[in-house]
Amino acid sequence: MADITIIGTGNMASGIVARAATAGKSVQVLSRDAGSAAALAATVNGTSGITGSPVEGSIVVLATPFEASKEVLSSYGSVLNGKTIVDISNPVNFETFDSLTVPAGTSAAEELQALVPGASVVKAFNTVFAATLAEGEVDGQTLDVLVAGDDAEATAAVVDFVKGAGLRPVNVGPLRRSRELEAFQLLVMTLQISEAHPDYNWNSAVKLLP
Amino acid sequence: MADITIIGTGNMASGIVARAATAGKSVQVLSRDAGSAAALAATVNGTSGITGSPVEGSIVVLATPFEASKEVLSSYGSVLNGKTIVDISNPVNFETFDSLTVPAGTSAAEELQALVPGASVVKAFNTVFAATLAEGEVDGQTLDVLVAGDDAEATAAVVDFVKGAGLRPVNVGPLRRSRELEAFQLLVMTLQISEAHPDYNWNSAVKLLP
Repeated sequence: MADITIIGTGNMASGIVARAATAGKSVQVLSRDAGSAAALAATVNGTSGITGSPVEGSIVVLATPFEASKEVLSSYGSVLNGKTIVDISNPVNFETFDSLTVPAGTSAAEELQALVPGASVVKAFNTVFAATLAEGEVDGQTLDVLVAGDDAEATAAVVDFVKGAGLRPVNVGPLRRSRELEAFQLLVMTLQISEAHPDYNWNSAVKLLP
Repeated sequence: MADITIIGTGNMASGIVARAATAGKSVQVLSRDAGSAAALAATVNGTSGITGSPVEGSIVVLATPFEASKEVLSSYGSVLNGKTIVDISNPVNFETFDSLTVPAGTSAAEELQALVPGASVVKAFNTVFAATLAEGEVDGQTLDVLVAGDDAEATAAVVDFVKGAGLRPVNVGPLRRSRELEAFQLLVMTLQISEAHPDYNWNSAVKLLP
């Protein structure tokens, strides 16, 4: 039985799988594509399967876009009761890079929590880019991972994972703080794509000092 | 005629007055209290007066709470046409520290802009605390000042001022990005007041790396 299940095989999934190995966690990778899941799992001697297979980890990382994350939670449903679900998504309108796709007054994380009331959704990793996650640092400084959740035990589990992975967790409070985390990352993404900011690329990061 | 008019005499006003002096700018300080204005202006050989006096600076910094800033702009009205108005406010519900006092889908900066359509409102300094502004750095790193504005010339003037003051300006785009700047600073303030975060005090800062 793996400690952590990661759903998805994209750049963020790869980064989180590598970090899980650093933290000494065993990993299960699930994906709609069995071959991709197996290939990523093999990098850390993990197990793999297609999405829909039994979830082994007590922590489940949705390393998928927001819309896909909704589908995953809807299809698993109450099977996930008691698990810690990590939402890393940024519900950005990628056509305009100018607004979020969730209504004002809520967040992707809160919408996901509503789909699985018996599980505990924790927001994390949405303010880090894949390249920085792989490096674990930016500009010689440890990467900050901002974490928000309503369930103390689930949030603590994610904070411990982040710390064990060699990153700096910052518990920013209840799950509704995801509204601000998602809003700010929209702003950060607008800098990445702006020609006025050649220095901000996908290897930049948000840091809370000190 | 002063280069910059600063309205207010609180901690943020003091920090900005000091930074203006660093930038080689002449300063006018206005306040409802003439004595406080004169005392602050005297620290940089500036001029002073009560709020309502003629505004000298082409840049006017509203170093006042959001509600007071609204009153200032309403009373000055079209007299401010053509000027660059710097909004530093955080429209936080200070009773709960859990929400903003502006409706979702807008920002304090945009609401202020609506009061003075002939002037150009620029958001700046809302993500820095007074103590860090006085120091100019946190943890040995130059303070970031995130700047948002719709008028290119006005925004450039504020960016130049910030740079001249020895800080690092980051132009984050149009004035509506103030929604994200104000949202994120709410989150940062919740950390300051949280007993769970003894390391985050009013001398912390948001930094974009690298």
